[in-house]
Amino acid sequence: MSFMPPTDAMFLLAESREHPMHVGGLQLFEPPEDSGPEFVRELLDSFRATDNVSPLFRKRPAEPVSSLGNAWWTYDDTIDFDYHLRHSALPQPGRIRELLQLTSRWHGGLLDRHRPLWETHVVEGLQDGRIAVYNKIHHSMVDGVSALRLMQRSLSKDPDGRDCVPPWALPSRKPSKDVEQRGLEPVLGALRSVGALGGEAAGLLPVALKAAGQMFRDGDVAMPRAPKTILNGRVGGARRFAAQSWEIDRIKRVAKSSATTMNDVVLAMVSGALREYLLEQHALPDEPMTAMVPVSLALRSESAGQSSSKDGNAVGAVIVNLATDVDSGPTRLEEIALSSRSAKKVLGGLTPTQILAYSALQVFPLALAPVPGYIKYARPPFNVIVSNVPGPNEPMYYNGARLDGMYPVSIVLDGQAINITLCSRDAYLDFGLIGCRKSVPHLQRLLTHLETALSELESAWG
Amino acid sequence: MSFMPPTDAMFLLAESREHPMHVGGLQLFEPPEDSGPEFVRELLDSFRATDNVSPLFRKRPAEPVSSLGNAWWTYDDTIDFDYHLRHSALPQPGRIRELLQLTSRWHGGLLDRHRPLWETHVVEGLQDGRIAVYNKIHHSMVDGVSALRLMQRSLSKDPDGRDCVPPWALPSRKPSKDVEQRGLEPVLGALRSVGALGGEAAGLLPVALKAAGQMFRDGDVAMPRAPKTILNGRVGGARRFAAQSWEIDRIKRVAKSSATTMNDVVLAMVSGALREYLLEQHALPDEPMTAMVPVSLALRSESAGQSSSKDGNAVGAVIVNLATDVDSGPTRLEEIALSSRSAKKVLGGLTPTQILAYSALQVFPLALAPVPGYIKYARPPFNVIVSNVPGPNEPMYYNGARLDGMYPVSIVLDGQAINITLCSRDAYLDFGLIGCRKSVPHLQRLLTHLETALSELESAWG
Repeated sequence: MSFMPPTDAMFLLAESREHPMHVGGLQLFEPPEDSGPEFVRELLDSFRATDNVSPLFRKRPAEPVSSLGNAWWTYDDTIDFDYHLRHSALPQPGRIRELLQLTSRWHGGLLDRHRPLWETHVVEGLQDGRIAVYNKIHHSMVDGVSALRLMQRSLSKDPDGRDCVPPWALPSRKPSKDVEQRGLEPVLGALRSVGALGGEAAGLLPVALKAAGQMFRDGDVAMPRAPKTILNGRVGGARRFAAQSWEIDRIKRVAKSSATTMNDVVLAMVSGALREYLLEQHALPDEPMTAMVPVSLALRSESAGQSSSKDGNAVGAVIVNLATDVDSGPTRLEEIALSSRSAKKVLGGLTPTQILAYSALQVFPLALAPVPGYIKYARPPFNVIVSNVPGPNEPMYYNGARLDGMYPVSIVLDGQAINITLCSRDAYLDFGLIGCRKSVPHLQRLLTHLETALSELESAWG
Repeated sequence: MSFMPPTDAMFLLAESREHPMHVGGLQLFEPPEDSGPEFVRELLDSFRATDNVSPLFRKRPAEPVSSLGNAWWTYDDTIDFDYHLRHSALPQPGRIRELLQLTSRWHGGLLDRHRPLWETHVVEGLQDGRIAVYNKIHHSMVDGVSALRLMQRSLSKDPDGRDCVPPWALPSRKPSKDVEQRGLEPVLGALRSVGALGGEAAGLLPVALKAAGQMFRDGDVAMPRAPKTILNGRVGGARRFAAQSWEIDRIKRVAKSSATTMNDVVLAMVSGALREYLLEQHALPDEPMTAMVPVSLALRSESAGQSSSKDGNAVGAVIVNLATDVDSGPTRLEEIALSSRSAKKVLGGLTPTQILAYSALQVFPLALAPVPGYIKYARPPFNVIVSNVPGPNEPMYYNGARLDGMYPVSIVLDGQAINITLCSRDAYLDFGLIGCRKSVPHLQRLLTHLETALSELESAWG
């Protein structure tokens, strides 16, 4: 047994049937040309043929219902592969639509706490012959970005390589002490701070408050206020997942012509899509909506006109005005870029440690969700989380099967009924949209609206 | 909204991720001869084509996390059929084994309390061309036997009939005021009594205690004591399901030759199977194990030499000695028959109301499972629940598709890691075995052992 830090235990304690605290990923693979009809079966056999399962994938809570202060991790000696590794199939006609439906169901289910907290589904039956892999791992074990990294480490750049092993057979690597780009982490980190009361992060909050307060008083920055929307109420237990890839070049071209960043263009796509979606639902707020965006210090340096330094990996959270009250796409992009630059300017004046604390402060209200009435009466700290996770920048393979999609499946929280996380892959940005099935009906329409929003920007700036 | 009686609310309150409180059924159908490849799709379309969903299938808790005393049912106006009705497929090679694996996964997941508490999966991909339907409904909505009845009501005796509608499109029927054969009900009824403190059933307990105590003092009856076994500890959240059909004639022949009842032969099969299974696990207790068996008053009348009366539907629970310490199958059957007759003799001396109370008393210790240490230190009240549910006694069809299997998928509780429920159908007994995946490894081996046990009895008595 090993001690479970309160920062891990938090994710077990905060979990309920309404908001499971696991992160997921949906990967698509194009089987190698020389593969036969037994490809999926052989893949599963190779997944199972692992004697040395790394400790991360053998770890489970010693007491399934943990309480703060006496939580321990324990390690199973053997793995019930028939449980963790699941051979699944799509019903007819085997479109991406059926795959997304299945992913929605899988992501809504709780992991069994009596065994290591992960599942992997290998899915056959896509009509185009591709296969899919859905992974799910508890956030108390690993954060979303590290989970994606782990999956990447089991891939190879070599299409002829045949020595790839699944993530659980990889040799363990000490987690880096550097603060890395960690996707959702700033948000959940706020919950962590509250859990680890009196911990380092909590202690830093007053410092950040002072620094941030100074800037607001100086009039440099206007902190965007988020209106209440249907996306910011309590969530149910069922999910809806949608995913699609966009060419990076399209986004890059718009960013270049409009003198904005790729991140700004992505936010403008999200803004346009949310606006259209909420208009359809007769639920667009009069005030502009805001997004919480994790940013790396590379961006800060960029905005401060410095070259990327060793600090470049540190991460902060900024809140950006999405300008959803504006009808014109190009104008929205301009407002977003402006708001984004102001927000990063705030970060520019802070040390990396202050940035972390400041970011935690911004997302802190999320930790108040369990307080009765809070969600119902308070304004949300922001309307939506849009997270951009770096992936491989060239084609990758798993024993000859080409990676053809890598869609993050993130976490929905009370007050945050939708989460948009994207991952760069080769020449694409893979968008993964997860939402509460009850509060976000027809989530998949956002995919069409994202494309419409990008097309509009292309017409103006392309 | 309508008031939720505490007896319903109990099942919501008692539920945890370790023991979901829903009951299920797995049905197999042989498609009609004139059906094409679109049969499953057409079936799903017809399932969805329902304007009038009956209130039972639109009912959900008004507050997903209910507490005793302020629980209400509410009714959704519309049903999200894409959620409740699931088109699923088996992976290659599409054997019954793959179907049972999928059923195990489905039955382990909690229902979403933010919507009506049921799911139906229509499954394609069985290599023999049959299709499967897995239903799941929360025990707070309906008990297991009523759920099976509901499924039966949507079937027809006419192979050419094409006017069958799914259970949710059936006209509502007032629940019968008669006490019916209700499968697991006596057990869960005990939990109900505890929940409805001071309710009628609880008030009856002293009466039953006195009546039962009198009989024990008279020396007529020896109450079998259950040893501790690996089947009687705490359970995890994952499940393992196994199912198989046996010809009723085989069981009937043995019962006739051995001058026992069909129920005795079924218990002897279960006894032989558990003995063999626990021997393999090096976990067979020295003392004989016991089974809790719900019996109808028809059986009581039978044992008392009376003809079946109007009381014939009332149900009680008896505890039968399974004689697992005995090596010989035929001897075990004799001991089981003897124990079963004694147990029923106890019931013979009671009024129907006393029987209900007496039965609740026997299963009462199950309600103590949440008391810390209770499961660990106390003896279990019995080792396994074996429940026999009457089904249709002739071939049944759903719009021409012949019912080819109807396997109950019951509930696993702390202290009761395995449940065996069977349903009669035409010329078969369909056994459904559900177990905690962690405490009951290789559950499916019990199927082989059940067959071995029956064969042994046939050699001796056939």
